[in-house]
Amino acid sequence: MGLQFKPQFVNLVPSLDPKAPQKQALVTLVGAGPGDPELITRKGLRALQSADAVLYDALVSPELLAEAPSKALKIFVGKRAGSHYKKQAEINALLVQTALEMGHVVRLKGGDPFVFGRGYEEKTFVESHGISVNVVPGISSTTSLAGLQGVPVTSRGYADSFWVLTAHTRSGGVSEDLQLAAQSSATVIVLMGLRRLEQICALYTAAGKRDLPVMVIQNGSCPDEQCWMGTVADIATRVTQERGSGPGIIVIGKVVALHPERVKNRALHEAQTPSATTLSS
Amino acid sequence: MGLQFKPQFVNLVPSLDPKAPQKQALVTLVGAGPGDPELITRKGLRALQSADAVLYDALVSPELLAEAPSKALKIFVGKRAGSHYKKQAEINALLVQTALEMGHVVRLKGGDPFVFGRGYEEKTFVESHGISVNVVPGISSTTSLAGLQGVPVTSRGYADSFWVLTAHTRSGGVSEDLQLAAQSSATVIVLMGLRRLEQICALYTAAGKRDLPVMVIQNGSCPDEQCWMGTVADIATRVTQERGSGPGIIVIGKVVALHPERVKNRALHEAQTPSATTLSS
Repeated sequence: MGLQFKPQFVNLVPSLDPKAPQKQALVTLVGAGPGDPELITRKGLRALQSADAVLYDALVSPELLAEAPSKALKIFVGKRAGSHYKKQAEINALLVQTALEMGHVVRLKGGDPFVFGRGYEEKTFVESHGISVNVVPGISSTTSLAGLQGVPVTSRGYADSFWVLTAHTRSGGVSEDLQLAAQSSATVIVLMGLRRLEQICALYTAAGKRDLPVMVIQNGSCPDEQCWMGTVADIATRVTQERGSGPGIIVIGKVVALHPERVKNRALHEAQTPSATTLSS
Repeated sequence: MGLQFKPQFVNLVPSLDPKAPQKQALVTLVGAGPGDPELITRKGLRALQSADAVLYDALVSPELLAEAPSKALKIFVGKRAGSHYKKQAEINALLVQTALEMGHVVRLKGGDPFVFGRGYEEKTFVESHGISVNVVPGISSTTSLAGLQGVPVTSRGYADSFWVLTAHTRSGGVSEDLQLAAQSSATVIVLMGLRRLEQICALYTAAGKRDLPVMVIQNGSCPDEQCWMGTVADIATRVTQERGSGPGIIVIGKVVALHPERVKNRALHEAQTPSATTLSS
């Protein structure tokens, strides 16, 4: 079966010696985790160490990439490399071509391949060309980044559920589900929402939740991680003044009050003014 | 600082040789992942391999426990061992006592310690006794079990968000948030909800979603994993007829139609009756 998409970067893949025995084509989608190279799974690491080629994203750390065999071909297919990014159709085609020519291809993706990762599209495309695909889950930044800051996404008496959304819809507006989320008691985690932070907070203000705690984490689990805390009423101002580039998540909910810095500040504040017990202090 | 809770199982922890140098007390909360021992992180594994003692849950596999040093004390603190389970206060106290007497204690928990795990309670209790706590995230079953079945929790055109809830509230009723969830377009993942499956489906039926696909996974990622598929209208009957014991999750949403078995069945069905294109086939 031929490729539906004609790749334009055949020169990236060196031709195999025709006398060498052909390896079985196989693709393993591996979740690299949120950024820290120590947070890959043992299973994912083993796949990486047996790879003939690795196709990796921008969010994958160099230390992790170094775990692949030195002779393995490493191809950057990140979407954050300015105007030179590869389109999804190109990545899909490159996966098939590389697996057919090289053997075992590890597709190393930030977070978990099946959580906002387009891993399903890659899997079905590769399988449609008769190549087997394995999936190794990774730690999703959606659930782990708050925890790495000391904030559980659920905790008794604070939140019994969590809802992970992207801020935008494909039509460009703010997601309708965000309006339901603002009415719920869930911890709400918004991805790709930093530019719409004011709009999101306006939804919560309309739901009467001006004092609800909010946390913004940028470059989570990486050396340049930044974290801001505030409330629905003031977080947008705080973040706008200081934030750099890089992906960020917004965590909205009572659990943010459990951040160690907040707990410490609240304890200090209560020692000075014993009657103050608001969650949003 | 003394223990607030007086443990009654002092004999579990052997006394140290008084001449031996005392080790630094430290507790590491490690997420063991969804069940498969290969799905622990490299960082979690390293913590486990350097443990002086391990406190572990029922959902942790024996293969994983065997990674701890043979001389490390291993204490089962699972809550699924019939009537002999330990209460949370006992676990908290045992963590402190074991760390003070043994040194580095790894608290090995199923999934992620901060996602429905009561890890935050353990962390704050231990820290309140002056002992440092590290947290190593794990792969949460909430996001990984659907993926291991080939179903992404989000996928373009199917779902842009996912919401993870428990079915019950502490007052015993069905969670109010479940009613919002039934109105949303999120992939909804319900934990500890198998006994309330009919009630949950009734909420979706009331929202006009009888045909929405539903998947139930029991003992996910383990050798005895079972998976049922159906719709809001028929899943409860299908599951009730066959299900065993063990923890299960319910996945409700259009993405369930992407399960490889469903895709295959749909392709067969469409080949026979070309006009049939419903999602719930």
